[in-house]
Amino acid sequence: MPVKTQTMKRISIVAEAIIAERLIDDIIRLGASGYTQTAAEGRGSRGVRASEWEGRNAKIETIVRPDVAEKILERLTSHYLKNFAVIAYTHDVEVIRGDKY
Amino acid sequence: MPVKTQTMKRISIVAEAIIAERLIDDIIRLGASGYTQTAAEGRGSRGVRASEWEGRNAKIETIVRPDVAEKILERLTSHYLKNFAVIAYTHDVEVIRGDKY
Amino acid sequence: MPVKTQTMKRISIVAEAIIAERLIDDIIRLGASGYTQTAAEGRGSRGVRASEWEGRNAKIETIVRPDVAEKILERLTSHYLKNFAVIAYTHDVEVIRGDKY
Repeated sequence: MPVKTQTMKRISIVAEAIIAERLIDDIIRLGASGYTQTAAEGRGSRGVRASEWEGRNAKIETIVRPDVAEKILERLTSHYLKNFAVIAYTHDVEVIRGDKY
Repeated sequence: MPVKTQTMKRISIVAEAIIAERLIDDIIRLGASGYTQTAAEGRGSRGVRASEWEGRNAKIETIVRPDVAEKILERLTSHYLKNFAVIAYTHDVEVIRGDKY
Repeated sequence: MPVKTQTMKRISIVAEAIIAERLIDDIIRLGASGYTQTAAEGRGSRGVRASEWEGRNAKIETIVRPDVAEKILERLTSHYLKNFAVIAYTHDVEVIRGDKY
């Protein structure tokens, strides 16, 4: 069977676990049809070990169409980056069964 | 020491935890020399919270040569996508110590 | 609000859990401002199930500038690849709030 793929955007967000649920609600509301969440340890400050962000983080990932990715990144920029310890990055992926998204 | 890298395919699969072992067996049989598996929460349906796929998922990742990636994606397309809640995507990565794969 | 992104390198390292702390110390010392660590099961040998590397692994990820990525990959190549079961790969990502790194 030939493999059909579709280019999508993968967005990865690492944030304080306490805001994970709010982030997920926003992601779904903006058009993502799914997500995964994993627990992660880590730190995100500028190299200072005694950071307020050391400890429990949530890593949230979603695979979305480019237009949905744009909306999610806009939301992260305008509502989260200033007030929370959040890192978010995106890159292209080839998804099989692309019609699902 | 100069850094030698080799372009490989990273395949990420998110699936119901119940089929993880079967997926891993297929991946190894088709030529992957290793994999990682992490537990993930999430949902994958089209925005419906009460999904049959809400809850425990497995995220399986493997780094393989392009020809092996093609075989794995074919297998996923022909044997999993219709019958299981599976998302799979791939992208290029630069791997150090590429001779290991 | 317009989305500003910066191209960075994501480095993913999968290694025996026992050397995770040493790896993280090296990563931070070489200029990374943060990392995440997740527990992973898996195996990394050439298809042999009874591997010395079957079992608990650590997956360490960091988002860094290209020059820092080069230093980290050099360190991995020169100090880890021969003596430990380590897989490391890198790819470009677009990061929001790029001024943080």
